[in-house]
Amino acid sequence: MKKVFITGISGFIGRHLALSLLDKGFQVSGSYLNNKVNLPPDIGQLKLDIRKSGQLESIISGFDIIVHCAALSHVGSSWKNLSDYYVVNFEGTVNLLDCLGNTSFVFISSSEVYGNHGDLNLREETNLLPSSPYAITKACAERVVLDTGGRVVRLFNVFGPGQSEKFAIPNFARQLMEIYVGRRKPVIKVGNLSPKRDFVYISDAVEAICRFIMSDKFRVLNVCSGKVYSVAEVLDKLISISGITASIEIDRNRVRPVDIPVIKGDNSKALSLGWIPKVSLEEGLQKLWEFYKGNV
Amino acid sequence: MKKVFITGISGFIGRHLALSLLDKGFQVSGSYLNNKVNLPPDIGQLKLDIRKSGQLESIISGFDIIVHCAALSHVGSSWKNLSDYYVVNFEGTVNLLDCLGNTSFVFISSSEVYGNHGDLNLREETNLLPSSPYAITKACAERVVLDTGGRVVRLFNVFGPGQSEKFAIPNFARQLMEIYVGRRKPVIKVGNLSPKRDFVYISDAVEAICRFIMSDKFRVLNVCSGKVYSVAEVLDKLISISGITASIEIDRNRVRPVDIPVIKGDNSKALSLGWIPKVSLEEGLQKLWEFYKGNV
Repeated sequence: MKKVFITGISGFIGRHLALSLLDKGFQVSGSYLNNKVNLPPDIGQLKLDIRKSGQLESIISGFDIIVHCAALSHVGSSWKNLSDYYVVNFEGTVNLLDCLGNTSFVFISSSEVYGNHGDLNLREETNLLPSSPYAITKACAERVVLDTGGRVVRLFNVFGPGQSEKFAIPNFARQLMEIYVGRRKPVIKVGNLSPKRDFVYISDAVEAICRFIMSDKFRVLNVCSGKVYSVAEVLDKLISISGITASIEIDRNRVRPVDIPVIKGDNSKALSLGWIPKVSLEEGLQKLWEFYKGNV
Repeated sequence: MKKVFITGISGFIGRHLALSLLDKGFQVSGSYLNNKVNLPPDIGQLKLDIRKSGQLESIISGFDIIVHCAALSHVGSSWKNLSDYYVVNFEGTVNLLDCLGNTSFVFISSSEVYGNHGDLNLREETNLLPSSPYAITKACAERVVLDTGGRVVRLFNVFGPGQSEKFAIPNFARQLMEIYVGRRKPVIKVGNLSPKRDFVYISDAVEAICRFIMSDKFRVLNVCSGKVYSVAEVLDKLISISGITASIEIDRNRVRPVDIPVIKGDNSKALSLGWIPKVSLEEGLQKLWEFYKGNV
């Protein structure tokens, strides 16, 4: 039974991944920075700050695989807190790599590292042109990971229950829920609605990560659907699912200095691992809306 | 006679460093990206793009030391061209490191990697809190350099003849020269005047780099004076040296999203190498003004 350690197990990806790996027979534990989350007692959770290199080696040794999810992950915030993104995303990753020994390493990265390639279907071999502070810290960390024998998963826009409401989809769902229960006027505040993104539902995303971990076939893997929708289209679908009538208002604070117009992935490598995305965007949004309605 | 290869030999630092190393008996050559510069024929110059990893190994092998100066170096521009800064400053550096072999490596970095520590005297051991896209790419590259056995020089604000006029001091000198010859109205356009910086004249800076190269004593070296002046003070001094009467106008395009209030270095390590900065800020500005007056 392989022993997996997940950094950032309290985060959106980490938590769902832990459950999925446990389900597949792995022995799973992981680390959180601030607060434990509700997970089965079989999954060990310990407090760990990857920014502090001193404590890492003793914790990591003894695991077969590290899946490094701990990160600051919001593109917009990275424009204001550059040094935090550098310290956590880059230094934190290199601190882990520096004390790895024989443990294999899987780095959870992001499609943001590709930057703007127009409407190209982004392949794992496409050049990286990161164009936000967040994306730069991820791209730099990736290179060190790959140069030291680690492997990289590039998640496109994953969404689902439990994601931070700083991100667009859960933020929209929260606002709709508040309108639904009468706590908010029927006005949805939004940022830039034109970017087109490649959306993947959380259960599909963690299934792809699991298949990547269990196979040695690739060093880098895109996790994406191969289809893009604008943020406006996603919002329309979500409004329609909710059955709510609401107007839309641009909030300038939500608009970023640079937004990549299209990020569209090629998922042929993931498909070749037997992975098939099962939840369509519409179905995912439906599930998310049910989650929000159930958590009023 | 040690063979040194300087990347970015056509740049401000590279050119002056090449002359100084030649003077000290090194065999010097280097690479430029776009155009050769005027250097003695003893100094070989070849065209090289560090972004393209394929051509690097055959060129580098055979040198004792690489001094890696090639970089995009303007903090302000980095906010608009993040992917270029990533590709040149980070990928370019790692591309070189990946084909080093036994050649020793000296990376020319910047005090910008320290970020905002208030008015602390920055020591080489101070944490890095880079807070611009430029500084992040340099800080990430530094870590890889150090982790692979290379060494790092952190230049504070170096100035002198031949520096790009995107930078404040030569930009002010150019404007004053244009006023002096009647090509411009007596109005100097400026960005943020309040940041305090630690200024080093170019001849002192390259002397410190040479001493660092010739010694094995330190892995990281600050090149700084230990004194700070605000940009306003520097401008006042330069105006006074020029004898010109001019008003000052803030140009919003020159103001950056984040400017670190104070960057002040501790130079005890450099001093322990026998280095003494010889040119004061006033003397340096005087020399610069003479250079600009002589190049009308």
